[in-house]
Amino acid sequence: MLRIAVLGCGRIGRMHAANVAAHPRATLASVYDVHRPSADEVAARHGVKVAETAEAVFASSDVDAVLVATATPTHADYIEQAVQAGKPVLCEKPIDLSLARVEACADAIRGKNPVIQLGFNRRFDPGHRAARDAVRAGEIGDLHQVVITSRDPGMPPRAYYEAAGGLFRDMTIHDFDLARFLLEEEPEDVFAIGGRLIDAPLMNELNDFDTAMFVLRTASGKQCHINNSRTSAYGYDQRVELLGTTGMVISGNRKPHEITHFSASHTERAVPYLEFFAERYSEAFNAEIGAFVEAVEKGVAPEVGFEDGRKALILAEAALKSAAEGRIVKVSEVE
Amino acid sequence: MLRIAVLGCGRIGRMHAANVAAHPRATLASVYDVHRPSADEVAARHGVKVAETAEAVFASSDVDAVLVATATPTHADYIEQAVQAGKPVLCEKPIDLSLARVEACADAIRGKNPVIQLGFNRRFDPGHRAARDAVRAGEIGDLHQVVITSRDPGMPPRAYYEAAGGLFRDMTIHDFDLARFLLEEEPEDVFAIGGRLIDAPLMNELNDFDTAMFVLRTASGKQCHINNSRTSAYGYDQRVELLGTTGMVISGNRKPHEITHFSASHTERAVPYLEFFAERYSEAFNAEIGAFVEAVEKGVAPEVGFEDGRKALILAEAALKSAAEGRIVKVSEVE
Amino acid sequence: MLRIAVLGCGRIGRMHAANVAAHPRATLASVYDVHRPSADEVAARHGVKVAETAEAVFASSDVDAVLVATATPTHADYIEQAVQAGKPVLCEKPIDLSLARVEACADAIRGKNPVIQLGFNRRFDPGHRAARDAVRAGEIGDLHQVVITSRDPGMPPRAYYEAAGGLFRDMTIHDFDLARFLLEEEPEDVFAIGGRLIDAPLMNELNDFDTAMFVLRTASGKQCHINNSRTSAYGYDQRVELLGTTGMVISGNRKPHEITHFSASHTERAVPYLEFFAERYSEAFNAEIGAFVEAVEKGVAPEVGFEDGRKALILAEAALKSAAEGRIVKVSEVE
Amino acid sequence: MLRIAVLGCGRIGRMHAANVAAHPRATLASVYDVHRPSADEVAARHGVKVAETAEAVFASSDVDAVLVATATPTHADYIEQAVQAGKPVLCEKPIDLSLARVEACADAIRGKNPVIQLGFNRRFDPGHRAARDAVRAGEIGDLHQVVITSRDPGMPPRAYYEAAGGLFRDMTIHDFDLARFLLEEEPEDVFAIGGRLIDAPLMNELNDFDTAMFVLRTASGKQCHINNSRTSAYGYDQRVELLGTTGMVISGNRKPHEITHFSASHTERAVPYLEFFAERYSEAFNAEIGAFVEAVEKGVAPEVGFEDGRKALILAEAALKSAAEGRIVKVSEVE
Repeated sequence: MLRIAVLGCGRIGRMHAANVAAHPRATLASVYDVHRPSADEVAARHGVKVAETAEAVFASSDVDAVLVATATPTHADYIEQAVQAGKPVLCEKPIDLSLARVEACADAIRGKNPVIQLGFNRRFDPGHRAARDAVRAGEIGDLHQVVITSRDPGMPPRAYYEAAGGLFRDMTIHDFDLARFLLEEEPEDVFAIGGRLIDAPLMNELNDFDTAMFVLRTASGKQCHINNSRTSAYGYDQRVELLGTTGMVISGNRKPHEITHFSASHTERAVPYLEFFAERYSEAFNAEIGAFVEAVEKGVAPEVGFEDGRKALILAEAALKSAAEGRIVKVSEVE
Repeated sequence: MLRIAVLGCGRIGRMHAANVAAHPRATLASVYDVHRPSADEVAARHGVKVAETAEAVFASSDVDAVLVATATPTHADYIEQAVQAGKPVLCEKPIDLSLARVEACADAIRGKNPVIQLGFNRRFDPGHRAARDAVRAGEIGDLHQVVITSRDPGMPPRAYYEAAGGLFRDMTIHDFDLARFLLEEEPEDVFAIGGRLIDAPLMNELNDFDTAMFVLRTASGKQCHINNSRTSAYGYDQRVELLGTTGMVISGNRKPHEITHFSASHTERAVPYLEFFAERYSEAFNAEIGAFVEAVEKGVAPEVGFEDGRKALILAEAALKSAAEGRIVKVSEVE
Repeated sequence: MLRIAVLGCGRIGRMHAANVAAHPRATLASVYDVHRPSADEVAARHGVKVAETAEAVFASSDVDAVLVATATPTHADYIEQAVQAGKPVLCEKPIDLSLARVEACADAIRGKNPVIQLGFNRRFDPGHRAARDAVRAGEIGDLHQVVITSRDPGMPPRAYYEAAGGLFRDMTIHDFDLARFLLEEEPEDVFAIGGRLIDAPLMNELNDFDTAMFVLRTASGKQCHINNSRTSAYGYDQRVELLGTTGMVISGNRKPHEITHFSASHTERAVPYLEFFAERYSEAFNAEIGAFVEAVEKGVAPEVGFEDGRKALILAEAALKSAAEGRIVKVSEVE
Repeated sequence: MLRIAVLGCGRIGRMHAANVAAHPRATLASVYDVHRPSADEVAARHGVKVAETAEAVFASSDVDAVLVATATPTHADYIEQAVQAGKPVLCEKPIDLSLARVEACADAIRGKNPVIQLGFNRRFDPGHRAARDAVRAGEIGDLHQVVITSRDPGMPPRAYYEAAGGLFRDMTIHDFDLARFLLEEEPEDVFAIGGRLIDAPLMNELNDFDTAMFVLRTASGKQCHINNSRTSAYGYDQRVELLGTTGMVISGNRKPHEITHFSASHTERAVPYLEFFAERYSEAFNAEIGAFVEAVEKGVAPEVGFEDGRKALILAEAALKSAAEGRIVKVSEVE
């Protein structure tokens, strides 16, 4: 049994703690949060102890691995500490909002060969993964176009915005990673437009976007479109479409159940999609833990690691530059 | 070009006339209706002449074949006249509401080897036919169960009821024929219940049903369920489901277009189904004319003929007996 | 926390044990199985102790409630013992294969006002329940017809058949309960046909059926069709359709993910449905535990109790009589 | 009855001729084609006469209006001749491949107030139009994003390429018009990438693209993505998606019938989509004729006219410039 400590007991940390506790080959070793009552609550729920400090977790001989779900500015530090302590780490995205800090972190851990997994959960979604596998299995021939639709059900609170680093680094970063996962080839060119259609005053104030469209192109010419919106009245909208020479595969949205209603005004009316990430990607978050446990058990590099976190951030930087300059930005310009 | 005269210029006759006129290898020869203005209107629409009597149509050397879409009590007479005149006939269902009259008609035309096609249009629906073809092609293995859902969008006017001969002989007769078409084997046992759930006073007065369920069984044990209702708020509901040892095939409903709507209260909401038979089965009505033209051209027996009309009526008789007696009725009991 | 012991550590008992262990307001108290290694395995998995006998479980002061997932012939005994011991019990269906034994059990526990929940899990399926709720909310007007499709993915092993009591008492019993749940009115008339289409030699030997169709009718005339098959190549097929005066609601099947594939030979091809009950009804099994915990906490009668188990068995008896005699059987004939 | 002559008896001209002939308020007056046998064939099919020259058609007092379905280089000339002759004209898209020629044509007909309808048939598709109407009716709140998927089933023959003027002016021009129709606001910014993924040698030789992605932006910030491919193994792929503040509406693809197939390897497998434009947009082509007839009858400007043809071509020019320069091109740069 792999003893995993969880740092960060907010919404996503609590979810990870429950998933670790329920995993057949892992146990929840301890939890930590800067806000002690949050840690206490999660600890009580699972009957584990609360660590006094993050440092104590990294030092503990009762902890085999660490899951980092704390605030973004701590991620790079904790990754470095985990590597220093020789403990495998599963860290929520992003590594950092600053590419410079990410590069410094990369330097700090270079050559230490740690087991670092990044929390790009969507790669573990059964649907999105099956879509990628279908391409690998040749079920659509040569891949030509990818379309990623990714829309949040609503605007997050203002406090969230202030910490999140903007639409491209916070939300689209998942889609950039998903694009790399599905294309199985690095994008070379990035084009982006950002809009302020939902709450223009707030977006202007924060110099951020609430609505965006992207086009990526790989060296071999594969094309990828991403669209983002901070509003999707009908639930969390997470779709992937892959067009190839002999076919297409689509990974669609999930509903809580398969009810359809028919009346004089409509047919086949279904219920709204699962509300947000914890529900929509619940299987993915579970599978992510499983993949981490397996990587640690086998002593192999996780399927999605530090470099993937760095590359997704670089795509976000290129997209920001593109949106500002109204032109294609080459990834090599910002790398 | 096959010169086809149309007897009966009501709703369904007008539709047939237009389909005949549009067929590349047929022309509309003339039309007739007991209500002269109806015939005049259709004749003007297509630039053809109005026949003074039905007898004149059968006698005319300008008419190669006759399509009978008049009131039910005239069907058997016109079939006999068509056969007498040596003209192929496409006759709307049913042959007659009385099995005795149908048998008499059978006797009258026996040995004359006429080309008689019965208007069981659903056999020509591209979806239902593709379902049957899938079974024939072995795509679901051995057929075990058939489920036919057949619901009219609303109650017909009282006058219709008085002429129609009751739910089983008027509406279910299509489903009985469809069951025979899909099972490709004769039902031996019939079970039926009839309900009065929509307009009980009227149904009691007419000794009729507005809602019904049926179970048929063939000699080899294949099972078939039919459900009927005179109300289907969401449009004409016409579905067929075939279960076999290696799979299932479903022929579903048609919508006028493929719009879906999404909001905070629903997803994937489509528009109501096509309203009624003329729209839902427009391709089938066309294909039916095509099959008739081809049968006449080739001088072969139509795919669906007099005997099919007789057998469907026998199933309706068996179902009426079953509903009255609360037991399985063998088809041989009423034949 | 409600301390629940689980009797029976077979496939379904193991699932229930895990669900109890994961429930936030319940704990797994202990487990028992006549086959000790099965109990040991489940106990080890959850870190609980193994009871030596079922009697020890009922006697234990560490056990607040008992979940019975043992072989059918023990159900009625354990229900009686639970009631005797004053312990709430959640018992898998059926109460017994013999209606006489069920009635004797009813006599034995009469007046003791116990908390007894029957394991009719489908009532807790989010889709089926939402369909029922839609009817209650008036979303389809007056209910007229119910169609229940219920097909197992494949034939069970011979040993299963020998213990299960036949298709109607083993498999259809779930559908009979679901029909009562959805109709919200007692069926008065039952009609059934049973077929031997999948494995006729075995079915003949066991005097059982592998394929069946049913029609039920309530006092007010509502109609219900059920179809059953022991083979459904495309996965566990569990659908419910409710037709009313102003609309229809359908609760459909679940897929493991929402992938669709498109090629030169097809479009919109999805993956097979969830394989069997543990996967298809996983949410229902969880919700069932939750409903039991809540009933015990509140000291109220469970939503689905002993009488529901008895009534479903009576419908099975009526259906057997109907299949044998080829006629509608009134429920009052077998009650 | 409006007497309409059809110029051009190729694939699309033949279809238009049949639609004109079948329209209840129009008749086919005559047909013309530079390739006389083509004209003869269509004339014989509909029993009309063949015009010796296009000039004769414009001069004829038996012709009320002209439908131009000839080769693209003749369109602008025929529009000018029709206007000169005072005859309403329905002209296939594009007006011309050269923007200069289009502007010259605009100059030539200015002030003559002719009835000119452009053949942007997709505006008349029942699904796409219902989507636009839903937006107008406020059913999705404020429109934010439009996604147009437009993929041809396969590569056209080489001869077609040589005449067609390239992907953007030939194929995307429909999508540019559809974008303007759906956005109900002029795009100001255009971004495009073109790829050579299907037949790179041919595309290199012709300096054309077979695969492309576009992003448009209107003055108010609305965003529109278009994707194009010359290969779509699963049939003609024509989808429109509109996202607004309170919902989304999608206009999807049409299948020839509603068969779905289920087996051990799949569920819900449908048949390929309608193969190409004549089938997929058959209702749209019909409605287009109807709209033209109505505009002529009422003496009003057609819903889609010369200026729409000019604007769509300008978007194509902007897109070509964008693809060449890797940057957003303002529509005002090429206008």
